[in-house]
Amino acid sequence: MNLLILGAGGRMGRSLVRAVSETNGAARVSAALERDGSQHLGEDAGALAGLSPLGVPVTADLDAALALVDGVLDFTAPAFSAEVAGRAASRGLVHVLGTTGLSPENEAAIAAAASGARIVKSGNMSLGVNLLAALVEEAARALPPGLFDLEIIEMHHRHKVDAPSGTALLLGEAAAAGRGVDFTQASVRVRDGHTGPRVEGTIGFATLRGGSVVGDHSVILAGEGESVTLSHHAADRMIFARGAVRAALWAAGKPAGLYSMRDVLGLA
Amino acid sequence: MNLLILGAGGRMGRSLVRAVSETNGAARVSAALERDGSQHLGEDAGALAGLSPLGVPVTADLDAALALVDGVLDFTAPAFSAEVAGRAASRGLVHVLGTTGLSPENEAAIAAAASGARIVKSGNMSLGVNLLAALVEEAARALPPGLFDLEIIEMHHRHKVDAPSGTALLLGEAAAAGRGVDFTQASVRVRDGHTGPRVEGTIGFATLRGGSVVGDHSVILAGEGESVTLSHHAADRMIFARGAVRAALWAAGKPAGLYSMRDVLGLA
Amino acid sequence: MNLLILGAGGRMGRSLVRAVSETNGAARVSAALERDGSQHLGEDAGALAGLSPLGVPVTADLDAALALVDGVLDFTAPAFSAEVAGRAASRGLVHVLGTTGLSPENEAAIAAAASGARIVKSGNMSLGVNLLAALVEEAARALPPGLFDLEIIEMHHRHKVDAPSGTALLLGEAAAAGRGVDFTQASVRVRDGHTGPRVEGTIGFATLRGGSVVGDHSVILAGEGESVTLSHHAADRMIFARGAVRAALWAAGKPAGLYSMRDVLGLA
Amino acid sequence: MNLLILGAGGRMGRSLVRAVSETNGAARVSAALERDGSQHLGEDAGALAGLSPLGVPVTADLDAALALVDGVLDFTAPAFSAEVAGRAASRGLVHVLGTTGLSPENEAAIAAAASGARIVKSGNMSLGVNLLAALVEEAARALPPGLFDLEIIEMHHRHKVDAPSGTALLLGEAAAAGRGVDFTQASVRVRDGHTGPRVEGTIGFATLRGGSVVGDHSVILAGEGESVTLSHHAADRMIFARGAVRAALWAAGKPAGLYSMRDVLGLA
Repeated sequence: MNLLILGAGGRMGRSLVRAVSETNGAARVSAALERDGSQHLGEDAGALAGLSPLGVPVTADLDAALALVDGVLDFTAPAFSAEVAGRAASRGLVHVLGTTGLSPENEAAIAAAASGARIVKSGNMSLGVNLLAALVEEAARALPPGLFDLEIIEMHHRHKVDAPSGTALLLGEAAAAGRGVDFTQASVRVRDGHTGPRVEGTIGFATLRGGSVVGDHSVILAGEGESVTLSHHAADRMIFARGAVRAALWAAGKPAGLYSMRDVLGLA
Repeated sequence: MNLLILGAGGRMGRSLVRAVSETNGAARVSAALERDGSQHLGEDAGALAGLSPLGVPVTADLDAALALVDGVLDFTAPAFSAEVAGRAASRGLVHVLGTTGLSPENEAAIAAAASGARIVKSGNMSLGVNLLAALVEEAARALPPGLFDLEIIEMHHRHKVDAPSGTALLLGEAAAAGRGVDFTQASVRVRDGHTGPRVEGTIGFATLRGGSVVGDHSVILAGEGESVTLSHHAADRMIFARGAVRAALWAAGKPAGLYSMRDVLGLA
Repeated sequence: MNLLILGAGGRMGRSLVRAVSETNGAARVSAALERDGSQHLGEDAGALAGLSPLGVPVTADLDAALALVDGVLDFTAPAFSAEVAGRAASRGLVHVLGTTGLSPENEAAIAAAASGARIVKSGNMSLGVNLLAALVEEAARALPPGLFDLEIIEMHHRHKVDAPSGTALLLGEAAAAGRGVDFTQASVRVRDGHTGPRVEGTIGFATLRGGSVVGDHSVILAGEGESVTLSHHAADRMIFARGAVRAALWAAGKPAGLYSMRDVLGLA
Repeated sequence: MNLLILGAGGRMGRSLVRAVSETNGAARVSAALERDGSQHLGEDAGALAGLSPLGVPVTADLDAALALVDGVLDFTAPAFSAEVAGRAASRGLVHVLGTTGLSPENEAAIAAAASGARIVKSGNMSLGVNLLAALVEEAARALPPGLFDLEIIEMHHRHKVDAPSGTALLLGEAAAAGRGVDFTQASVRVRDGHTGPRVEGTIGFATLRGGSVVGDHSVILAGEGESVTLSHHAADRMIFARGAVRAALWAAGKPAGLYSMRDVLGLA
């Protein structure tokens, strides 16, 4: 599968190039894009990623690049991603779209493009996190709040400035969906001092910070005499790039449409 | 719901009585059985279980007992359970059947009875373990062996004489089902000395023994840069009795048929 | 070793009787006390604890009881414990003192009594928790705050009404002692929303609540590229009774003095 | 502190250069060595490590390099390390020695050199693992085999070809030292099928393999109703280089002698 890497000079773009190189030839970087005026124009996409040169220079011409490929890996910016979706649709390409912060207009444009393109869109491309969210939803549905209490704990490195993490909130939303409750209303974000007994049906959060931890998340369903814990450990930020490449390979054989990572995992 | 407890003088029977008493009136012990000649005949089922007396004496007359109830909780012996299934069917009762060691003939008799009774049958009535097995099957299907290695670790108390535990094997079978591979062939039961690199697609087992641990099980799916861990912790052997009571309450409103704990959990 | 159980009709007293019965004869319940007017006076201490009768009736005469034994297990009330300490001293007995809420006057009386008695005093008699606290202090000293961040996470059952747990605070104090910092000033009790990056040298707390969890505590020292986690899992409230019995057996051969559970563990 | 990096063109040497650069000026790479004929002679040590150039070319002249520095970081080969120890001694330098496979003759030469040099020698320079080993020894001493069973579990990536890991064995040896038993005799390396009940005083091992796990180790002390777990998680092979740099900084102010990482941690 021939792939175009958008933002090939950036951190995520370089990770995508490395992730493609790990597929043993199942996918290949065939084009690499940067914006007009980038200092990386003309550089080799492989060399930029710390690999051997691939013979693929970074260019700024989107249409010429799209003409060379079967799919596009895109972690760029909302307006640009919406435009790429349209152009990918007109060529019937695969468009893996990991850009965040999309406006309703961007979303609408992307949904429209999905009549022609095979778009896989997700705010978190990790296979493991997406699997975990699906399992959490199922577990929260199967083990009812009268019997099992649901708690979410996450740990990240010392530099992270907000809490809980976006992934912890995503897991909480999956739990709330499984329980059929309103996520915000069910959430208990802090506990300190006299808290009183736990309120049935709530979803508790706890946050740890320290060291260089990339991202650890656990969802605990604790009942009388037993508990089930569902955890994800991220060791490496490359998992997002690897998930995107896997999504592209998966989408290659699918009809046009708008897909999520749960589709890629066969869970939807 | 009026329930009959079979083997009410035994350890599991007493646990069942206690589990029913935890339902806040949703279920009630209305009859209690022991075999002819049991020393417990005539004793109060509640007192036997260490609770306040329930006014329910232990008797040896199965038919008279069945006439008083909507459902039967049965962790007894294969031939007897098969017979109970038939009688429960003729009365349209719920039959929760946790007896193990059933022969093919017992299984056939139970399947036949399921045209009239609502039978919930399982070798492990814990809600958590059954949920975990379902999630493991799904995870093993979603995260393919080329990307994720599957390992199972269990810990039990120092008195346990075999390894791996039955539950660890059950989880391994769920994983093999999810992967569509032969469980026995895929299993790696020990590692020591020069093992060589891990063989793709295998399911590894590891066993810990110590203290008074009731039963801890974890299934790890380890990929490049991330891992997913699905765990169950049993703190208390009452979880099997509680699961049985829950199964009875669930089955009360269902059509006749043969059900598993996955049905009870809404996962099948 | 002949032991006197104080409060033999209460929950802790019964646990102490059972814990003594687990020692295979190394210790023996030789006397059992309750307050004047207790409904349990005259009952057998073993039967009260759910064991076979021990031939030891519950009495209300402290001096007569002390005359029969080598040591006293005492989880009662501050003023009474202080008085027991004095009487134990005049007889040269072992006094295991798990009573909490002691006033400075009680503490002074106990310290004075320690010139004659062998007193083991602790607010938490669990061997595991006391060991953990000692290891946490050492780890916090060895891994300095510029390199390793220290976090404490605890989980308890859904009925617990305060946070963090007393044991979590005890572990935090051990960590602060190891680091030579003021515990209260170093503590970060909640994290939610925009927290900013972690402040070097702080001790973070996180709290989980759910199910029937007796008590789980972990102390994490997270550095660049590695972390050390020190955990305690309580499965059973009997651990406090067992620790007290062990303390009594340990103190039997020691000179008079005031000891802690760290002494019993050989860590002081 | 001015440091010489031996083997500056190799994988470990480059990690050492990066680890020195993380010290915010507390240490500085002032010389870098490779063997005669290395292709890296003349290259900049910083550039080789993927950093900005340091103005420190790789040379092959050991004595000239030693003249420029206060300490040497050495993960090279046994005979060469023994020679370096002697030369470091004659100049009163710090010598951090992580070379493995030393012969008795090498060890003797190093011990002799320690009368002049401050040598920190260890087969594993990770701060966390060395701390863990010290804590395990202490825990194994404090919680006796009649009460607590000791188990060791480790997980490494799918490419590891032997089991248990060297670090698991090191932890087992620390446990055996704490218990005062013979390590080999106490070890139980596999469990499968009918094992019989756990034998008191044994040290059990279990091994997991999968994904890209750098190295996880847990030592569990499981008693009646409670357990203590002491764990180390390695996220990054840089921890060995960082530990070596820390050892050098620690040794700067010490008298001549032969030290271990436990000394560096203040635990010996």
